[in-house]
Amino acid sequence: MGRLTQRRRVVRLTLEHGRRPREETMAVEEPLEIRLEGRVFSVTMRTPGHDFDLVAGFLVGEGVVWESGHLLSLRYCAGEDEEGRQTFNVVEAQLGPGAVPPDPSLDRHVYTSSSCGICGTASIDAVSKTVRFPLDPAGGRMRLETLLALPTTLREHQALFGKSGGVHAAGLFGPDGTLLCLREDVGRHNAVDKVVGWALREGRLPLSDTVLQVSGRASFELVQKARLAGIPVLTAVGAPSSLAVELADREGLTLAGFSRGSSVNVYTHPDRILAPAPDPAAGIPTTSQQGSAP
Amino acid sequence: MGRLTQRRRVVRLTLEHGRRPREETMAVEEPLEIRLEGRVFSVTMRTPGHDFDLVAGFLVGEGVVWESGHLLSLRYCAGEDEEGRQTFNVVEAQLGPGAVPPDPSLDRHVYTSSSCGICGTASIDAVSKTVRFPLDPAGGRMRLETLLALPTTLREHQALFGKSGGVHAAGLFGPDGTLLCLREDVGRHNAVDKVVGWALREGRLPLSDTVLQVSGRASFELVQKARLAGIPVLTAVGAPSSLAVELADREGLTLAGFSRGSSVNVYTHPDRILAPAPDPAAGIPTTSQQGSAP
Repeated sequence: MGRLTQRRRVVRLTLEHGRRPREETMAVEEPLEIRLEGRVFSVTMRTPGHDFDLVAGFLVGEGVVWESGHLLSLRYCAGEDEEGRQTFNVVEAQLGPGAVPPDPSLDRHVYTSSSCGICGTASIDAVSKTVRFPLDPAGGRMRLETLLALPTTLREHQALFGKSGGVHAAGLFGPDGTLLCLREDVGRHNAVDKVVGWALREGRLPLSDTVLQVSGRASFELVQKARLAGIPVLTAVGAPSSLAVELADREGLTLAGFSRGSSVNVYTHPDRILAPAPDPAAGIPTTSQQGSAP
Repeated sequence: MGRLTQRRRVVRLTLEHGRRPREETMAVEEPLEIRLEGRVFSVTMRTPGHDFDLVAGFLVGEGVVWESGHLLSLRYCAGEDEEGRQTFNVVEAQLGPGAVPPDPSLDRHVYTSSSCGICGTASIDAVSKTVRFPLDPAGGRMRLETLLALPTTLREHQALFGKSGGVHAAGLFGPDGTLLCLREDVGRHNAVDKVVGWALREGRLPLSDTVLQVSGRASFELVQKARLAGIPVLTAVGAPSSLAVELADREGLTLAGFSRGSSVNVYTHPDRILAPAPDPAAGIPTTSQQGSAP
């Protein structure tokens, strides 16, 4: 496609050598306008590529569609730049029977639906009400060493990162660590949308027995997207936020963070991660969500 | 405030020691609903604290206000959770004379105003049309060693990061490297909004002779926010996107990335960074945006 990265001459400044010209590769960022039934639904800044997956996944995350039949069509709308070239930056989605179009009186995000008195709990409630798939407690079980290896696999398969250093990645894995789908984007939420949209269009939702690895941090929004796709395990290289943990806890999703090669923190529902038994020498009891040790 | 971080018992899994309970500190993420003249304008997921700065800065970045007099009042709207407690998650802004309320027919982001045929150029045009302050080519000049030291200063002053590892920071610096304002948030755009809003409310806009250092990557949105606040230099620890570079180039803003201690890439308008002369031994001519060396 030639639009994923762009090369540009930059100036590299170092204390030792002063100014030196240099060619740098950058991740492309372009706006994508998502139209639903002829109406602007959202605009996101994204890296071009897999746009139909992005739109499909975005609509899954908003609770609009959850089966491939809910999307009648996806097409690039006629949008032209100043020179009359098609920009491929406007995608129109037509919904099929069974889809739930968003309430036009609401703003574009699910969590805006709880307007006055808004709080984290209301945001969590809004997601819980939108959920279409139950989460199987036994789904997404993975051995610890397999889980710990996912960030390396993600990095090895990232086509863009090595070139630009500027993109997030989301990778969907089977319980044995097989990579099912990897997508990259300047926005981490877009990378997840692209993975989920791929699954919807392949007729694979819910993703009951998979693990989603993301390159950055885990926000509320990412847990929401994973949950609505039926993904039971979300693991991040970075830290989760408080609300991400609360949502995962309530919804039965396993949320892991700081996955750094030899260790990982599991914030919620750790039973899906099959780890060695506790070290008896350490003398520390198994953790519990309630209370703290005396 | 006690709402910036939250502690939680988690399970730490390592290959050597198996499961161990552990207390972890997480950055708090909560929704903030921004109301403008009684109407919902935006909802953002943010770390509580400096909410009025966040709202003020957000409105600067959207071109709604650019002088302190444009904001008549900011107050927490009555919003209650299930137990009837004030959530402090809804802020109402009243505009004063001279402010430019957003067109109610448009979606919440500036770049949505160019609807069909949307492209990067249209997004850049939308920002250029909204700009209120010219950028002084001589403003924000900084010595290279001062610029390279900013990420360390930022990290040293980050109250939250050390605790949670999960937040972004934005720091505003004077030309001699003096820290003027630092804000942290789970969202990097929020951290920048908080800095800009602080400046608006202090009557300091435009920020003509300052440098903004951010902890992560530089997106289009961050360049937009810096430009509308009149900040001439934006420097990031991570990579910029293509559109961030294009916007900075067009608008005369100096954009630097990969600022990593001893070197930095300057993508646009490098003359504000005062570096040692080119190394004559290297035999490389001074860079130029046009063409490449034979």
